[in-house]
Amino acid sequence: MSQLQRITIDPCQIQETQLFLTPQQQHYLLRVLRSRDGDKFIAMDGIGNWWLAQLIGEQGQILEPLEVKTELPVSITLMVALPKGNGFDDVVRCCTELGVTCIAPVLSDRTLLNPSPQKLERWRRIASEAAEQSERAFVPTILEPVAFSTAINECASTHRYICEARGDYPHLRTVLNKFSGEIIIAIGPEGGWTDQELEIAIKSGFEPISLGRRILRAVTAPIVALSLIAATCEV
Amino acid sequence: MSQLQRITIDPCQIQETQLFLTPQQQHYLLRVLRSRDGDKFIAMDGIGNWWLAQLIGEQGQILEPLEVKTELPVSITLMVALPKGNGFDDVVRCCTELGVTCIAPVLSDRTLLNPSPQKLERWRRIASEAAEQSERAFVPTILEPVAFSTAINECASTHRYICEARGDYPHLRTVLNKFSGEIIIAIGPEGGWTDQELEIAIKSGFEPISLGRRILRAVTAPIVALSLIAATCEV
Repeated sequence: MSQLQRITIDPCQIQETQLFLTPQQQHYLLRVLRSRDGDKFIAMDGIGNWWLAQLIGEQGQILEPLEVKTELPVSITLMVALPKGNGFDDVVRCCTELGVTCIAPVLSDRTLLNPSPQKLERWRRIASEAAEQSERAFVPTILEPVAFSTAINECASTHRYICEARGDYPHLRTVLNKFSGEIIIAIGPEGGWTDQELEIAIKSGFEPISLGRRILRAVTAPIVALSLIAATCEV
Repeated sequence: MSQLQRITIDPCQIQETQLFLTPQQQHYLLRVLRSRDGDKFIAMDGIGNWWLAQLIGEQGQILEPLEVKTELPVSITLMVALPKGNGFDDVVRCCTELGVTCIAPVLSDRTLLNPSPQKLERWRRIASEAAEQSERAFVPTILEPVAFSTAINECASTHRYICEARGDYPHLRTVLNKFSGEIIIAIGPEGGWTDQELEIAIKSGFEPISLGRRILRAVTAPIVALSLIAATCEV
């Protein structure tokens, strides 16, 4: 099974076999994902159409349409603060089963440790195994951990949410009613985001949301968020 | 209030404004949490009542009852086939966080082992801890494991669903639109229910439903189901 990167495009970006990438998509593919000339990736239009594409310089070339039955019709990036212990293994495993596109581990003010490169390899292996077990067509991308402030500046999706356990924010389920295409959801560590982190995220365009009235562990919250997003897209 | 320590008590421990703590509770408050004379904490009886209490020496003093907002307005029974290994610990922990009312472990045709009584004690302790951590007012009930055929005959709710990974069944999210009051949801083991089990359940009034197009592990499926039910009730 291929571990291909995935981007969401507007159908009008395709002209015959040419895929005209936006500056944001070029930045994402070349800088964030470090794709190189000739690398293959998947272009999806957010409404169920998929194409295998190839990076030629800074533009895309459509190779063939793909038939996909077990993938969500949207792109979901989970930005998640690294929890203590081995909790992140479960986050990667469960969220892969639930259809996540990209997992971006972030170091937050309350994250204790910077993980070793071995950890990243381990998470990628878990994602690959979980993708196979759940009969997905693609393996989600696991990015290298970066600081939260770096991560929030690198993403440009229109649908960006940050989960906050305390405070009177709308439930994720209610905001999902108006959602399609691409979504980025940020979930904090044990103890939650600091006030400052929340403030920075909101200023950067993230909408604060709630996952319900109970306090969820850092490992449970991403699974809940993915469950709700996947169910909304598939039904 | 949210920052106060919480302990689960039996209502008979309260006499007027006196709260008689057990040696375990004294140990937890004084040694584990290092509470001091005069410190406030929350006592909850596991059936919806919360009190603000204060530590006086090694005993508690009830100060006032508290209003509880973290419980779901419905009753959810999760009937779940015991998975392999320690997976059930995670099911109990996560589903308690998500607001489950009762967990009924069942032995299915593909369940390998009958768990020891120590396991049941362990799950009840996990449920109690998870209820405290997630700030619930109720500790969910964990029933003793019984055969699947026994369990399905013991339940009489009008809303009964059985999850099945294969087959073209409606998504849980769609059937939840017509739901209120009380729900029973049955989730199978690794490898799924046998055809015979599914048939028996359907004959007994269970409606087969899907949790999405990917194959979920036995540990993930209950968390997904609870996420969807909880979000539907709370929004």
